[in-house]
Amino acid sequence: MSQLQDSTAVQPLRVSQTVSWGHCDPAGIIYTPRVLDYAMETLETWNREILGVPWFKLNRELSMGFPTVKAELDFVKPPAVDDVVTLKLDVVALGRSSLTTLVTGQDSAGEDYFRVKIVSVLISVPEYTSKEIIPEFRQKILAYQAACEKIN
Amino acid sequence: MSQLQDSTAVQPLRVSQTVSWGHCDPAGIIYTPRVLDYAMETLETWNREILGVPWFKLNRELSMGFPTVKAELDFVKPPAVDDVVTLKLDVVALGRSSLTTLVTGQDSAGEDYFRVKIVSVLISVPEYTSKEIIPEFRQKILAYQAACEKIN
Amino acid sequence: MSQLQDSTAVQPLRVSQTVSWGHCDPAGIIYTPRVLDYAMETLETWNREILGVPWFKLNRELSMGFPTVKAELDFVKPPAVDDVVTLKLDVVALGRSSLTTLVTGQDSAGEDYFRVKIVSVLISVPEYTSKEIIPEFRQKILAYQAACEKIN
Amino acid sequence: MSQLQDSTAVQPLRVSQTVSWGHCDPAGIIYTPRVLDYAMETLETWNREILGVPWFKLNRELSMGFPTVKAELDFVKPPAVDDVVTLKLDVVALGRSSLTTLVTGQDSAGEDYFRVKIVSVLISVPEYTSKEIIPEFRQKILAYQAACEKIN
Repeated sequence: MSQLQDSTAVQPLRVSQTVSWGHCDPAGIIYTPRVLDYAMETLETWNREILGVPWFKLNRELSMGFPTVKAELDFVKPPAVDDVVTLKLDVVALGRSSLTTLVTGQDSAGEDYFRVKIVSVLISVPEYTSKEIIPEFRQKILAYQAACEKIN
Repeated sequence: MSQLQDSTAVQPLRVSQTVSWGHCDPAGIIYTPRVLDYAMETLETWNREILGVPWFKLNRELSMGFPTVKAELDFVKPPAVDDVVTLKLDVVALGRSSLTTLVTGQDSAGEDYFRVKIVSVLISVPEYTSKEIIPEFRQKILAYQAACEKIN
Repeated sequence: MSQLQDSTAVQPLRVSQTVSWGHCDPAGIIYTPRVLDYAMETLETWNREILGVPWFKLNRELSMGFPTVKAELDFVKPPAVDDVVTLKLDVVALGRSSLTTLVTGQDSAGEDYFRVKIVSVLISVPEYTSKEIIPEFRQKILAYQAACEKIN
Repeated sequence: MSQLQDSTAVQPLRVSQTVSWGHCDPAGIIYTPRVLDYAMETLETWNREILGVPWFKLNRELSMGFPTVKAELDFVKPPAVDDVVTLKLDVVALGRSSLTTLVTGQDSAGEDYFRVKIVSVLISVPEYTSKEIIPEFRQKILAYQAACEKIN
């Protein structure tokens, strides 16, 4: 299958998350660290569905890991209980071993609740040394990036 | 060292937990499932400090596990933000493979916030079959039970 | 609209939950207290979609609450990372002020992962005194119960 | 009481946190978003003990809030199950309405596990508009900063 066909088939990931009672604090808005939970679960879904390799399989079968080395969170306006947050993921940069992604949480009008930039590094397990991103992943990441640019 | 000396040395476990902002829901009281978190962390501490074997060591070095098969929670009055909960653990029953413990969360006046009964079963890993509680654990559990009865 | 029509329209609630990396412990299976999280979020969804009143609205606009007074968890087999849990909710008993529900988590073959029985009591806020379940809720609960019985 | 005496009395905050089984993921290390939980709970303790105003009292009695507008996390090495993390908090910058703090998590040898920079902004509630940091807080923040500098 050619890369062109892949690129056509890939759809930008959208995850929908209703803010639950237990995700909120006594001020009635999302508890701050939950935003990083939402972003990491979006990245996890992206690994499962777009890269095609869930973290567990990556760890146990392929002896690799993709840990977070840096995260930056910008809180624009806090979602409250029962709000529905649409999460999207964009690829910001792709290095030798590192991948920078941006998870944005938006309301139904497309306005940002928050933005979370995550830098991940591919490593060998159990050595915990960085590893060049393998061609299969690189191709899928670039195809995803191309698919996202078409709609932005 | 004799069992008598052990029994004298063992102290009933007390864990203090301040209810944080993020543990509470928009009603300003502890979010219900957090009570089970508090109870399980108390049981984990008890395994580490009283049985002398943290769960990770039990799992990876001794090829055993102590999973929960049943839990019963009674909510008497909900602690609120900044309340300090004192958690104590009592041994309720000790079977061939199973251990029943009761974690009680109390306020500073000794009144109950909640009671959590947990039934754990010792298993072999990775077979996941029940296993007779080993003599070393049994002796420590009985010594702990005796120490608790003295102060009740 | 007659109750008969209601009963026809109501569908038994099914919630699908993929077990994420962060929901699991170092043994690779769901961390015990997460099961109560899953059950409570199912009950919350049921309040929002079947009773038609999210907890936040219940609390802030209607001056009521529906706190949990008792919960019983049976762990049959633990779901692992990337497993998909189907959660269903059945009404077990309906008293003057109390509602007993059973949330069951199942695998794709319909086998139980866990069962969680939750007793909730309707209260007036901020008095925190029990309150007779209002006719609107009672009718919807009975219609839901009837709809579930048809498929069991 | 003079500011000098305050400054002498204030001690840099140290919080000790044992990494529990439920805080870790199937790789046996802390689940990434938990690091932000640890940092936020340290900041909450600092508000309670150093500023002398728990968030709940700030919100409900003083009609103020201190929400996070930005957070930056650097993961140096991940703590694993049963590791003890010592958390310390330093004041990095103090603006008109904003406070920048740095929470560092370290092992027993003083090496960093992670660093979390948090920017908070004082607001009026329920208007949600930024507000000049009140003199009582400013004085305590500066006294704390001076106390930390003495030991660094």
